[in-house]
Amino acid sequence: MDWFKIVNGINADQLFQTIDLVKENPDLARFKFRAQNTWINGTPNRAMVKDFYGALQEDDSREPMVFDLDEPPVLCGENKGANPVEYLLVALSGCLTTSMVAHAAAKDITLEKVSSRYEGDLDLQGFLGLSEEVPVGYQTIRVYFHIETDISEAQKEELVKMAQKYSPVYNTITKATPVMVHLEK
Amino acid sequence: MDWFKIVNGINADQLFQTIDLVKENPDLARFKFRAQNTWINGTPNRAMVKDFYGALQEDDSREPMVFDLDEPPVLCGENKGANPVEYLLVALSGCLTTSMVAHAAAKDITLEKVSSRYEGDLDLQGFLGLSEEVPVGYQTIRVYFHIETDISEAQKEELVKMAQKYSPVYNTITKATPVMVHLEK
Repeated sequence: MDWFKIVNGINADQLFQTIDLVKENPDLARFKFRAQNTWINGTPNRAMVKDFYGALQEDDSREPMVFDLDEPPVLCGENKGANPVEYLLVALSGCLTTSMVAHAAAKDITLEKVSSRYEGDLDLQGFLGLSEEVPVGYQTIRVYFHIETDISEAQKEELVKMAQKYSPVYNTITKATPVMVHLEK
Repeated sequence: MDWFKIVNGINADQLFQTIDLVKENPDLARFKFRAQNTWINGTPNRAMVKDFYGALQEDDSREPMVFDLDEPPVLCGENKGANPVEYLLVALSGCLTTSMVAHAAAKDITLEKVSSRYEGDLDLQGFLGLSEEVPVGYQTIRVYFHIETDISEAQKEELVKMAQKYSPVYNTITKATPVMVHLEK
């Protein structure tokens, strides 16, 4: 029987083994994540996530995960799903949370409860083409973390900093990531 | 009985009326979108989207929309949902699609089918803290659009450019958007 060290529900032994393996072979850390989208009609469209590449191999083992996107009626939609900028906040929320929890586990800090709120300011004058000065994307996103566990406020602040330092979605949003959009013939 | 001009399933009359109203009162265009997240245990966490502010009022009329996030086993997870960087691609896919369809409707271009594929390169040496040089977020995201309709290739390329120009999620990712993360006492 094997015993693993589990902290915050994360297998810390597996995490450290992964780090050691990646140190020996950095190609293990190269991942490609994917999605597809099909327009339905009007504002509703549907995305699908399934396969990815990572740890030197294709992984097609997951069942397809389907996401409906739409807009509320005030934005010409039919409420058939959250809208794309809300999905962006969902992505950010999951990534900051997992980054915090995993890095706390690596430092042997046990967390009891972690919750967070997200709010982004969007001025649709950009989308509507009414102003070249107003940003088309979110102007600012604010995040509020609530952490329950028996550590100091300074340690909680340190966890919030680690989440930002190591979260892929946070860094994708804050660092001007290149997105190359092609037309397929 | 009212007659509306519908292009691509989008009420183009409502779109132009909205533009006229926003020209008169730009505050109508200021929106605040929101999400919440609750950590479950380990890598799984759950996000919720419901209320937003826009068109000068709070809107709490939608049913809560719940999203499960997790990681695949190779990333210490249990496959209980797509992972956060995949949700980011979902957000981008919906936003580029809706931006293209709405701006085509405004230009009276009828679309038949629109689909798209997304792939982002992520080197987990950043997340794992093994390199300060490797970006923590996506290094590059590639997007491939397939558009079926009776217009020229040049017009299709123009639609792809409009999608990029007017998509809030695309511009949030490519323009280094500030994200302020706070600890709540």
